[in-house]
Parts: sequence; C-alpha cells; structure tokens
Amino acid sequence: MIGWEDVYKVVVAVVPLYVALVLGYGSLKWWNIFTREQCDAINKFVCYFTFPLFTFEFTAHIDPFKMNYSFIAADTISKFIIMVVLALWAKCTTKGSFCWSITSFSLCTLTNALVVGVPMVKPMYGALGEDLVVQSSVVQAIIWLTLLLFVLEFRRTGIQGTTTLKPRSKATIVDNVSNVTTSDGVAIDVKEELVLEETVSSRLPFGKLMKLVWLKLVMNPNSYGCVMGISWAFISNRWNLVMPSMVEGSIQIMSKAGIGTAMFSMGIFMALQENLIACGPSMTVFGLVLKFIAGPAAMAIGAIVVGLHGDVLRVAIIQAAVPQSITSFIYAKEYGLHPEILSTAVIFGMIVSLPVLVAYYAILEFIH
Amino acid sequence: MIGWEDVYKVVVAVVPLYVALVLGYGSLKWWNIFTREQCDAINKFVCYFTFPLFTFEFTAHIDPFKMNYSFIAADTISKFIIMVVLALWAKCTTKGSFCWSITSFSLCTLTNALVVGVPMVKPMYGALGEDLVVQSSVVQAIIWLTLLLFVLEFRRTGIQGTTTLKPRSKATIVDNVSNVTTSDGVAIDVKEELVLEETVSSRLPFGKLMKLVWLKLVMNPNSYGCVMGISWAFISNRWNLVMPSMVEGSIQIMSKAGIGTAMFSMGIFMALQENLIACGPSMTVFGLVLKFIAGPAAMAIGAIVVGLHGDVLRVAIIQAAVPQSITSFIYAKEYGLHPEILSTAVIFGMIVSLPVLVAYYAILEFIH
Repeated sequence: MIGWEDVYKVVVAVVPLYVALVLGYGSLKWWNIFTREQCDAINKFVCYFTFPLFTFEFTAHIDPFKMNYSFIAADTISKFIIMVVLALWAKCTTKGSFCWSITSFSLCTLTNALVVGVPMVKPMYGALGEDLVVQSSVVQAIIWLTLLLFVLEFRRTGIQGTTTLKPRSKATIVDNVSNVTTSDGVAIDVKEELVLEETVSSRLPFGKLMKLVWLKLVMNPNSYGCVMGISWAFISNRWNLVMPSMVEGSIQIMSKAGIGTAMFSMGIFMALQENLIACGPSMTVFGLVLKFIAGPAAMAIGAIVVGLHGDVLRVAIIQAAVPQSITSFIYAKEYGLHPEILSTAVIFGMIVSLPVLVAYYAILEFIH
Repeated sequence: MIGWEDVYKVVVAVVPLYVALVLGYGSLKWWNIFTREQCDAINKFVCYFTFPLFTFEFTAHIDPFKMNYSFIAADTISKFIIMVVLALWAKCTTKGSFCWSITSFSLCTLTNALVVGVPMVKPMYGALGEDLVVQSSVVQAIIWLTLLLFVLEFRRTGIQGTTTLKPRSKATIVDNVSNVTTSDGVAIDVKEELVLEETVSSRLPFGKLMKLVWLKLVMNPNSYGCVMGISWAFISNRWNLVMPSMVEGSIQIMSKAGIGTAMFSMGIFMALQENLIACGPSMTVFGLVLKFIAGPAAMAIGAIVVGLHGDVLRVAIIQAAVPQSITSFIYAKEYGLHPEILSTAVIFGMIVSLPVLVAYYAILEFIH
C-alpha cells in the first residue's frame, strides 16, 4: 500500500507545474501583462526554442539499444486495439464516423509525456518510470503523431475512398477554415480557394501525399527535436561518443527553460479561451472517459498480452493516463477537426490529472 | 600558471551564454520570428517572471551571517574611491559634469553579476568564486542600484543645488523624452508637461524624493526578487528553517529558465539596436576602459587596503571586470542619461568579456 508520504512526493513534484501554469494564466487574466499579439511571442519562443531543445535533451539520453521492447510492444498493441474498435464503430454503427474515430484515437492515446508525464511518474516509480515514459514519448513523436498527421492530411485531400464521407469532411473543413478567417474578413475567398484546392488535391497520388506529410513534419521544430535526439542517441551508443560539454551546456541553457515555459504557455493558452470547457459538459465527460479510462484500459490489455508485470506494468498503465498531448490539439486546430474538444481535453485533463493519477497510483499497488 | 585546460573550462561555461544570446539575436535579425511588439513580450517575461525568481534563488541561498565582510568592505572602498575621483573631476575640471559622473560611476562599478559573473567566475575559482560574486550582487542590488536611482531622481527633480547644471540637465531630459515619444506623435505635449512637472518637482522636499525612489524600487520586480531572497536568507539561517520542497520546486521551475531567457532577451535587445556601437568608437573605448580597467583597478586598491589576498583577492578584481549591468542601462534609458553609451557598454562589453576575463584570469595567477 502506498502511504501519505508517497502521495506527498508526487504532489511536491507536480505542484510546480501548476504554479507555472497559474503564472501564465494570471499574466493575462489578472495582471494584463501581455497583449494578445504578445501571447503569440511566448508561444513561439516555446515552440521554436525551449521545447525542441527540451525534447532533444530527453531523447538524446536514452539508449536505443536497451529500450524495453516488450513495453513498446504493449503500447503498440493497445493502440491497435483502439484503432480496431474505432474502425468497427465507424463502419458498423450509424453514429460512427471517420472524423470522430480520428479524434477519439487522439484522445485515447496521445499524451503530454515529457512535460507532465515525466514529473508525475518519476516520483512514483523512479528512474524506471522516467525511462519508460521517455521511450513511449519517442515512439509517440516518431510513429503515432506522424500517423495522425498522415490520416489528417489524407482526410483533407479527400481520397479516403468512402464517398459518403467526402462531402461531410469537406464541409467541416470549409466551416472551420471560414470560422478561423472570418475575423480577417476574407472568409469567402478562402471558401472558394479551398473548394478549388480540394478538387486539385483529390487527384494527388499517394507519393505526393507522403511528401506533404513529410514536409509538415520537417517544418515542425518538435519533430526534429525528437528525431535529432534519437539519432544522436543511436550514434553515441553505437560508437560510444560523448557529447562535448560545450554543446551539452549550450543545449541545456535553453532546455532547462523547457518545462517552465511550456506550462506558462499552456496557462496563457487557457487564459485565451473564452470558455475553459469549450465543447459543452457532455463532450468534456466523453473526452475525459476516453483519456483516463479507455486509454489506460487498452494499455492494460496490451500489457497483459505481452506479459508485463510489476512496476513496468504499473508504469505502462499510468503513463497512458497522462493528460492530452498539446501537439494533438495543434493538429486538430490546423486541420479544423474538433479543436474545441481537444482544447478542453488539454485544459481540463491537466486540471484533473493530479487526483486521477494519484488514484491510479494507489489502485495499481494492488496489482502483482 | 593556468593551463589550457583551465581556460577551456571557462570557455565551456561561457559559450552557452553566447549561444542563447545568438539565438535571441537571430530570432529577430535572421529568422524574423518575432515582431517588434512581440520582442517586448519576451522582455516582460524575463523581467516579471524568470529573472526575479532567478535572483531570489541565488540570494535566498547565501548565509548573511557568514558573508565575507572584508571582501564587501574592499568593494565599498573601491566604489568610494571612484566616487571621490569623479566628484573631484566634476568640481575641479572644466570638462567635468555631474551627469557624466553618474554615467562613469555606473560604467566603472555596476556589473551583470548573476547572469554573466557567476558562470564566468565559477569555473575559475569554484564555490568560493560563486559565493563572493553572489554576495557582491546582493550589495549591488540593495545599496548601489538604489543609490544610482536616488541620484538619477535627484538630478531629474532639479534640486542638486548647483544652479549651473540645472538648465543643462532639464534640456537633456526634454530632448530624450521627446526622442522617445516623437514616434507616438505626442512630443510637444510631453515637453510642456515635463516643464510643468519640473517646476513642481523642484519644490519637492527630501522626504518626498525618498518616497519616489522607494516606490520605483518597490515597482521593480528585480529588487523585490533580491530583497525577498535576502530576507529569506536571514530568516532561514537565524532560525534554521528549510524551505518546503514544494515551494523550492515552484521557484526553480521558473528560475531555471532565468539565465537562458535573460541572455536570449539580451540578444533580442542587440538585434533591436540600429547600430551595435550606438555611441561612436571613441565613447565605446571610453566605456570599455572604465569597465575593464578603471573598475578592476579601483577594486584592487580597495582589496589591498583591506588586506585581501589569495583567491579572494583574485575574485574581487575579476568580478569587477564582469560586463555592464543591464539594470544600469534600463535606468539610463528611463532617465534619459546617456542610454546609448550604456547600451554599447552592455552589448560590446558582453562580446569582448570572454577574452578580457580570461586575460585577467591568467594575469592574476601571478599575484600572491
């Protein structure tokens, strides 16, 4: 059984995250320190500088030759289970849809592993917990976020094949894009252009689609933070190279700012929303159930199939309950696919995550 | 004699500062990531959040009951020597002036101790070096910057007594303020208001002046970062209190970002200047001579008077050659007193400081 001192350790590690979040929120809501345009500067500073280096710093220090492959297999199986369930739901029920399947997959599986996962799991399970969370974050960044981007691009270009879904998804895009741009007074132009682009892009061959996705990934500073980190991890472990301390120091001077600035920026993001629950209470509950129950449940099945046990099993389940990945919200916004649900999942998930994860921590002690 | 490996240690510690500086500079100059308004957001983020907590973190961990009081005495004596020389120069020579004395004092004595001083001095003289630099930064923040503010406020209110200087300083203020506000199209209003304010403030009694300075200090987040830090240091050392780890963690999440964001912000500041050498080459050389030669020379005299020797003497001299304090530039800009000279001293001083400090390091080895 875990005692109060174990819970206290977790609280001590997590409270600073909330403090940085509240400072960011308050800087805008209470103290009016930043204008709206200036908020974007903080966001850019995090996106282009502190966060990619923060990601690099974590991924560069894993040993790719000593990763826990059964843990990763369990993670992969759990995601396949979710995919199969969602595909069946989309195909076989009247309520099911391709678009909702994408969003549900995102809610079930994609977590904010490095910023929230590591500080939460480390005081619970020590270095083992941190290692596994970092490993799953690498797999998420390289495989699952790429897949999500691919599916979103696939949906946008309208070559998903099922003709019944095509008009609906196109309408969704047009609605969303016009929502975004109405404020700039160019909504109609965009609508026309988009229909044109749709017609052109429908004829895109698979190769071009891949190239589009690839370009998106290359333009994303976080993905190259991760890819360069894992590349260095391979090189350094293969040939026993050590990073020169000058380079290490130059990365750390910005990466040390990563977690504080990321949470601060999330606080600003919260303050910018008109409503913390943008999608209504029932959708919020739906999102939270997928995130905190369906995701960990699928992970438990995957872990049992692979035969994980002890702390690795516990970490596997608990890391699946870490709050929503911010990147998944950014993609949702960019592609106009339920951004209000993802935004609520990011915000509300973060707020409730401490009690939820502590509850998981307590319950998982009874597993042997 | 110091070897190459000693110099290399210093370079390793200092290069990351320059990397963060170059990232900030490049973000604006080469990559156009931020607009001008957005640059101000990064500056505010540093001023209100990361830097005060960074200052707090350092000052809260000194032991005020075990400060090296002979080192502080040497520092104080050196500043008095400079003050006396400047006062004599202002009184007894035709070129001398009260305004130039203030700027010269600032150039000779005020350093960027925590951001640049600690990383430079620590690899040279270890924990002793860090301790002494932090102690001198506390004295600077509490006594010398307050005195500078007092003198600047004194000059602005026009009660310095010497009637010959009054019109000149008033004209300077009006010129500078109108320079600042011309871009907003309200230059004339400001000029009129200022003359009015001058007339009113000339009658200010000393008590009100003190109150004004006090208010300025209270409004400055850095000074309360330092004052709260030293207050906590007194309390914790007097009653053997330990900061709860939750509070410590909450401070560290932002303070860890302090050095990276401060250097990044200085890089942005450099990129915003039309000219890196804003005040012309002869004034630049003048500033550098005061900073890197006059300041350390005065410190050496003070140190010898007090009888410092060994590493404490070396640290005393080398910490006096740390580049210009950014706060001194901010005050110069606010009070319209030679901001272009202080800006050049901050920028150019930072650029040349690595070779200069390494040279001092090598030379000081011969002192016994």
